[in-house]
Amino acid sequence: MAVVMSILAQNISNEVCIIDANEKLVNGESKDVQQGSLYLRDAVIIGNTDYKASEDSAVCIITAGERQKKGQTRLDLLKTNVKIITQIVPPLVKYSPETILIIVSNPCDILAHVAWKTSQLPLERVFASGTHLDTARFRYFIAKRLGVSASSVQGYVIGEHGDSSVPVWSAVSVGGIRFRDLSKCAGAEGDTDQWHEVHNQVVKAAYEVIAGKGYTNWAIGLTVASLVSMILDNKNEVATVSTLAREREGIENDVFLSLPVVIGANGVTSFIKLQLSGLEQELLCKSAETLNKAMQSLKEKK
Amino acid sequence: MAVVMSILAQNISNEVCIIDANEKLVNGESKDVQQGSLYLRDAVIIGNTDYKASEDSAVCIITAGERQKKGQTRLDLLKTNVKIITQIVPPLVKYSPETILIIVSNPCDILAHVAWKTSQLPLERVFASGTHLDTARFRYFIAKRLGVSASSVQGYVIGEHGDSSVPVWSAVSVGGIRFRDLSKCAGAEGDTDQWHEVHNQVVKAAYEVIAGKGYTNWAIGLTVASLVSMILDNKNEVATVSTLAREREGIENDVFLSLPVVIGANGVTSFIKLQLSGLEQELLCKSAETLNKAMQSLKEKK
Amino acid sequence: MAVVMSILAQNISNEVCIIDANEKLVNGESKDVQQGSLYLRDAVIIGNTDYKASEDSAVCIITAGERQKKGQTRLDLLKTNVKIITQIVPPLVKYSPETILIIVSNPCDILAHVAWKTSQLPLERVFASGTHLDTARFRYFIAKRLGVSASSVQGYVIGEHGDSSVPVWSAVSVGGIRFRDLSKCAGAEGDTDQWHEVHNQVVKAAYEVIAGKGYTNWAIGLTVASLVSMILDNKNEVATVSTLAREREGIENDVFLSLPVVIGANGVTSFIKLQLSGLEQELLCKSAETLNKAMQSLKEKK
Amino acid sequence: MAVVMSILAQNISNEVCIIDANEKLVNGESKDVQQGSLYLRDAVIIGNTDYKASEDSAVCIITAGERQKKGQTRLDLLKTNVKIITQIVPPLVKYSPETILIIVSNPCDILAHVAWKTSQLPLERVFASGTHLDTARFRYFIAKRLGVSASSVQGYVIGEHGDSSVPVWSAVSVGGIRFRDLSKCAGAEGDTDQWHEVHNQVVKAAYEVIAGKGYTNWAIGLTVASLVSMILDNKNEVATVSTLAREREGIENDVFLSLPVVIGANGVTSFIKLQLSGLEQELLCKSAETLNKAMQSLKEKK
Repeated sequence: MAVVMSILAQNISNEVCIIDANEKLVNGESKDVQQGSLYLRDAVIIGNTDYKASEDSAVCIITAGERQKKGQTRLDLLKTNVKIITQIVPPLVKYSPETILIIVSNPCDILAHVAWKTSQLPLERVFASGTHLDTARFRYFIAKRLGVSASSVQGYVIGEHGDSSVPVWSAVSVGGIRFRDLSKCAGAEGDTDQWHEVHNQVVKAAYEVIAGKGYTNWAIGLTVASLVSMILDNKNEVATVSTLAREREGIENDVFLSLPVVIGANGVTSFIKLQLSGLEQELLCKSAETLNKAMQSLKEKK
Repeated sequence: MAVVMSILAQNISNEVCIIDANEKLVNGESKDVQQGSLYLRDAVIIGNTDYKASEDSAVCIITAGERQKKGQTRLDLLKTNVKIITQIVPPLVKYSPETILIIVSNPCDILAHVAWKTSQLPLERVFASGTHLDTARFRYFIAKRLGVSASSVQGYVIGEHGDSSVPVWSAVSVGGIRFRDLSKCAGAEGDTDQWHEVHNQVVKAAYEVIAGKGYTNWAIGLTVASLVSMILDNKNEVATVSTLAREREGIENDVFLSLPVVIGANGVTSFIKLQLSGLEQELLCKSAETLNKAMQSLKEKK
Repeated sequence: MAVVMSILAQNISNEVCIIDANEKLVNGESKDVQQGSLYLRDAVIIGNTDYKASEDSAVCIITAGERQKKGQTRLDLLKTNVKIITQIVPPLVKYSPETILIIVSNPCDILAHVAWKTSQLPLERVFASGTHLDTARFRYFIAKRLGVSASSVQGYVIGEHGDSSVPVWSAVSVGGIRFRDLSKCAGAEGDTDQWHEVHNQVVKAAYEVIAGKGYTNWAIGLTVASLVSMILDNKNEVATVSTLAREREGIENDVFLSLPVVIGANGVTSFIKLQLSGLEQELLCKSAETLNKAMQSLKEKK
Repeated sequence: MAVVMSILAQNISNEVCIIDANEKLVNGESKDVQQGSLYLRDAVIIGNTDYKASEDSAVCIITAGERQKKGQTRLDLLKTNVKIITQIVPPLVKYSPETILIIVSNPCDILAHVAWKTSQLPLERVFASGTHLDTARFRYFIAKRLGVSASSVQGYVIGEHGDSSVPVWSAVSVGGIRFRDLSKCAGAEGDTDQWHEVHNQVVKAAYEVIAGKGYTNWAIGLTVASLVSMILDNKNEVATVSTLAREREGIENDVFLSLPVVIGANGVTSFIKLQLSGLEQELLCKSAETLNKAMQSLKEKK
């Protein structure tokens, strides 16, 4: 719902369809928004349990999936969510064969990989929101420490959307000035300013929000909505989302992970070539390896 | 939070402060929004338990209050919420003596009355969202039935924000054309088109949403945000909000209820004089009486 | 260019193509906007002399046409502009056969009529901006006099976009309250408040702006952009635009003039039935007659 | 007027006052916008010849000034415009003593310097739009060549807003990746990709637009509006505007020129320290020298 409200309130699209298996819930949510549509430029909001209602969607966003339960292993959770994705994707693609799929459900890298295979859509039309949110947090935390706006800070978090994500300190710039020119070893060994703490903040960010309110929704809603606007407005904007990374940036595994790419009307249209430092390169490969193991465990235990 | 997100995502204000007694919750919510602020034009979001953080707010919106529990009488609930309001208002006004107070907590008409007395602010600076949401729903349901946009339908629901609210069918216009010219007795006796059903939909709207998802938030968030924009942009727009109604439209009781008023930088700056039909007039007085009884019961049982 | 900037700056569309016979001018204008596109959400602006560049446009807006020269009769000007329209429409429609045509060039009622015949498009897909601007001015001037926002005033100017336009005082409402209930004979005989002065202001509005700066552009640009948003967002909003009026509201002539209609993704999808007063009806028929004479003179002197 | 429309249509402010000595013109322009205010969220537009109407403005933007006439030397033009500025600034500051002044009139660097001295405002509250537009053009032209959005390109043009402006190729990044990592000597000697052509495009941009339409307005309007939003929304965003540069980046002259600074509610609140290459440093000092000479000539010939 945070994705829906971000899209509608920011006028990114004026028509949204919400599909959910829970009829009561989808009716309650869609009616609630409809009743305020006078203040959403008369936007159209549809709620349904039947995928047919989503026919001809330009973009489909999948947020369905369970959260980890007590006693449940990560692998068990993964299997449950893979099953959910493989059930959702075919009817979505059946009714919107030209769509672009954005996977937000976690673990999003692996689920996007599965969604891509299931969908039989071209590679550029299936990706996960990945580290797009981590990047927004990274820029926000740097900006806050420096007292400037987040939009004046450039920089990326790449790799797995999770604990093994990699901050690309070597590419951070503030107001267009390379950060390492201002603070020599920012984020690396010997950094007396402790900039690496910022990446810890990024990794802990979701946990802190969950500790406070039990779940996260606003930041992920806003960042996913921004991806939708890049597609619908054909912006060709650079963002870090999760796509097939094999043979890019030294990655050998057949995995989805986040790298800076150009996003426009056709989805992921090209890659930005990074100049990673040795350490960053190493961490990225480790992140790829982590994801590869998860993919393998999925296959073995099927 | 739906009010906060509607304000930020629609660029109505770029600075919002959330005050809540629950420190964990207010931290979780404010951090979640902050982490997406890159996609909110770098808006500033503050979360705190201390009212001081809200200093010099142009508008204060009160949404705090309990919901009815099983076995609890309406009067008991009312007393609980009155107590909450009388605790919240003084520190808010202390730190923002020039503020405008919007009461959203229910029963909002009575709580706004209490808030006004507690605050010692000028009358025009304290009001409840009242039937502003009922009006939005009323226009939406008429529009939907006619196949036009809600913004092309004019009309108001006045009186209590609750079961005794009064639809002013005699003033409804569609595309500027008086509805009663198109459909003679719309909403009144002898209406073969059953337009009065629309008011039933309005009254049931919240219950239906609650039945589906357990609470309402989006529509009330969007409509309250629209009131904030009328104030911050000094729009002098006409809206139905709850203010002191004595000696207006034939009301004799000393109650707050919703009437069409002009809202601008100073709050409720003037009233629009209605031309109610006999039935509408009667229903409005009944609505006033209902509210008056609740106010009286509050006094007696103190 | 005011239409272009209103569309882009208000995020109504993020892609605009400007076609003009003057290559230097169209290059200058389109480059100027492109160079600021960073602050237009990276919108795409195309400038060209070749109609092919406008291929697959959802909406085509025609503003071309000469202004009256000294010594030139109105009829001579009309003939010149009819010729321009008949040259512009075929290539536009050739490259965008599914488009909706909005005629802004004056005299827009007659030129829309000609454009419709030339285009062979369905009737609902060709209309003139007509009195949509007169209506905006009418609401603004009433609002200003009352001290409320223009969006809180409903009302329409219909008929010819020109001196014979008709203000529908009987349908004006302020904050949803019928104006005639507040001010008995507003705009009619015996009106001691001189509300008819407001219609004089509307008629004189363009002349006053032209006297000051030599031409009008901002208000017409904003109002035309609002029509585009009704189409692109499929709003089904009620607006007064110029379309074939025969057999509507007692009009017998085969003319285009403005009436309140519903505008959505397919253009003019339906009409709102008016309840005109006797005087209003008479004035509307006179307005139709005026337009009919102009159409006839065009045929005779061909 | 392009500044005014960019501010209003993008909802940066909902109240604008236009002051001009030409009463007919200012009436024509302000009325034209007012008549479309229904589609500008009921914004308030004031037009006046009396500075009193601008009382308590948060930001004052000066665009007045003559354009170079045939036979007129640059110095003569400069003197004329200096005289205009010294007449405009005192009454503006008298009525808005807490304002922030943005000088757009050319040559803006020198006029901002004069405006600052005349105004006796704190240094941070007076600046020229300077190379903020050149930077927007620079980013746009790089983005266009690469097929990405301008918002994905970071980079700055600094120094004089004019022919001696300096592109900081060493700081350009695309999608957060340092451009020089992708294209070794981009913009410098030995660049086989001819990136320096892009800076030529920037310098020529205004001339090309003027050749086409006789003047520039849209891009400068949009970029100045973006500066206003940084102030009104206290964004602390980094932008290149013209301020006192002595003792910054190796500049010894007492001149105003553009450098990347942080802009917020108080104007220019801090500087971003650049790491210029040797060539860039040299060009910047030359640019400063050019401006210094113009300032000196102004003094000598008084």
